[in-house]
Amino acid sequence: MKTRAAVAFAPKTRLEIIEVDLDGPRAGEVLVEIMATGICHTDAYTLDGLDSEGLFPVILGHEGAGIVREVGAGVTSVVPGDHVIPLYTPECRQCKSCLSGKTNLCTAIRATQGQGVMPDGTSRFSYKGQKLHHYMGCSTFSNFTVLPEIAVAKIRTDAPFKTSCYIGCGVTTGVGAVVNTADVRPGDNVIVFGLGGIGLNVLQGARMAGANLIIGVDINPDRADWGQRFGMTHFVNPNDVDGDLVQHLVGLTDGGADFTFDCTGNTTVMRQALEACHRGWGTSIIIGVAEAGKEISTRPFQLVTGRNWRGTAFGGAKGRTDVPKIVDWYMNGKIEIDPMITHVLTLDDINKGFDLMHAGESIRSVVVF
Amino acid sequence: MKTRAAVAFAPKTRLEIIEVDLDGPRAGEVLVEIMATGICHTDAYTLDGLDSEGLFPVILGHEGAGIVREVGAGVTSVVPGDHVIPLYTPECRQCKSCLSGKTNLCTAIRATQGQGVMPDGTSRFSYKGQKLHHYMGCSTFSNFTVLPEIAVAKIRTDAPFKTSCYIGCGVTTGVGAVVNTADVRPGDNVIVFGLGGIGLNVLQGARMAGANLIIGVDINPDRADWGQRFGMTHFVNPNDVDGDLVQHLVGLTDGGADFTFDCTGNTTVMRQALEACHRGWGTSIIIGVAEAGKEISTRPFQLVTGRNWRGTAFGGAKGRTDVPKIVDWYMNGKIEIDPMITHVLTLDDINKGFDLMHAGESIRSVVVF
Repeated sequence: MKTRAAVAFAPKTRLEIIEVDLDGPRAGEVLVEIMATGICHTDAYTLDGLDSEGLFPVILGHEGAGIVREVGAGVTSVVPGDHVIPLYTPECRQCKSCLSGKTNLCTAIRATQGQGVMPDGTSRFSYKGQKLHHYMGCSTFSNFTVLPEIAVAKIRTDAPFKTSCYIGCGVTTGVGAVVNTADVRPGDNVIVFGLGGIGLNVLQGARMAGANLIIGVDINPDRADWGQRFGMTHFVNPNDVDGDLVQHLVGLTDGGADFTFDCTGNTTVMRQALEACHRGWGTSIIIGVAEAGKEISTRPFQLVTGRNWRGTAFGGAKGRTDVPKIVDWYMNGKIEIDPMITHVLTLDDINKGFDLMHAGESIRSVVVF
Repeated sequence: MKTRAAVAFAPKTRLEIIEVDLDGPRAGEVLVEIMATGICHTDAYTLDGLDSEGLFPVILGHEGAGIVREVGAGVTSVVPGDHVIPLYTPECRQCKSCLSGKTNLCTAIRATQGQGVMPDGTSRFSYKGQKLHHYMGCSTFSNFTVLPEIAVAKIRTDAPFKTSCYIGCGVTTGVGAVVNTADVRPGDNVIVFGLGGIGLNVLQGARMAGANLIIGVDINPDRADWGQRFGMTHFVNPNDVDGDLVQHLVGLTDGGADFTFDCTGNTTVMRQALEACHRGWGTSIIIGVAEAGKEISTRPFQLVTGRNWRGTAFGGAKGRTDVPKIVDWYMNGKIEIDPMITHVLTLDDINKGFDLMHAGESIRSVVVF
């Protein structure tokens, strides 16, 4: 079949909106009509050539929502008409990781996903006979895409695509880091470093979990209003702090936070986040993706005196199990998404979404098909 | 009163065995006759002048066992005749840390302990009118010492002092790291880096907890026999490994260990210990104390993909609560101590204990009074 898609033929180019060829789903695969997709920093990271493992030509996009239109042989968990969110972190429920019950990092199709192909080693996308790579197992910058059955989460049909697509990455990453990875409890004190889309979702996750102090840290003063909208109780602009930021935060939290979250990708901030944790039990969780080659460091004394350093990917969410729950939380008003969708674009305008992101003018731009 | 004690008048000197003056216990304090004391690397670290916060003159020693001989006003938890182990990590059961239930790092007397004095700000020890500092709140290199009530663990009276004194630091640090901090479960795979006294105690903690693979890593081939004696199932000498040590260990453990323990104090090893953890859930625990100024580092990707970096002090043990249990484990044969006590000395020979340690010839030297 033919589908309209935004193709990145090479790094550091504009996406080209063209008709491409798409093979139908093979065994264990599903064809999904993408109804909406967010534009995430990770797409830009690859498009900008910063990911040394980035493959081109490619159809980017990994934060979508859509409708199953066809299923391949052996598919049992979804049927045509089901509403789904594509999962760049699948959930096979059979690999060592899934069966451990201790991680969401399913390894069933990790190797081929990293190579930009389907689990059988081939791509479904092509253009004039030239193979196009899949991206993060999703390729949601295409009106239609093919996904492994284990990489779609079936969601309720009354959730709007325009907002629920954001659950495919940003919302789940932020809210899930609080709920799944940190397991924040009522009364805990929380500090969030970096109030972009992920940070705002961490804030509202902490609010939902009943956190006490919810401190947001950002050098952009405009983020204060944004933070307050999603549950932040105190805003700290490091540029306005006299003296040491960590000591200031430790003072605000009577000895340090129970949980801190780095949503900046800056390794210096990651260290501050760790050291702003409470002695004895505070846990710092790295969400941001650091620049290639950058390392985190600290004195081991920080850990020996009881601080814990952890990380999270996709908010620790088991995609098929947890994503539908987050959709419920959204539909039930426990979390908000609508105010975060600052720009709605057509596929033809997708490059504008990247421009807005680079200019820091959007929280989330969404393409609606 | 007078007591014989080993006094360090200055860093990098031999201890002098002399009679010193000891004031009796004040309110909330107890006088303890030390019956035996281990000589620990931390004593040597201070004596060798490596601890920038080390205070002199001082009576070192923090790994003892003895008998309460007198109690000050208001003391209710012990009486004369009780057998006790001094606690350099006290347990007041009233501070924020103790009440949290999440850490053993009681803060009740931390400030004065760091200043080498009792909680009222004064020292009980003096020599010819000159104040001598307490050490780690214990000063067990003295036949008699005074301790805060919250810094003694009452233990059963049938436990031999010569071996149970080792529970005052090394045994609890190693076994406790497994049981309290890591919470190793039956079937878990464990790697222990550094098979000195702490490492051997981690090994036997892992054996007691029912671990599956218990891999010991040391560059000293003589430690293989020692390790096997305390539950090690595989020995790895990094000097005998072709290629990358971490990859070798990840291969041995089918993807990495559930728990790794650094007992070396070497920050390069600490990184290897983290990276030898299983993707998704592996936890690395730092026990060793690093050289001043040294830092740990890694790529944040290691944490984002699910590894946890933690530390432990005094094995995460709440002294008054957990130390008596460890004495029971020893008396019931769940853990061994006797073979680790490689040298028994008199107080007059205490400097020999430091020599043996520096020469790597002892697991643990104990002074019996």
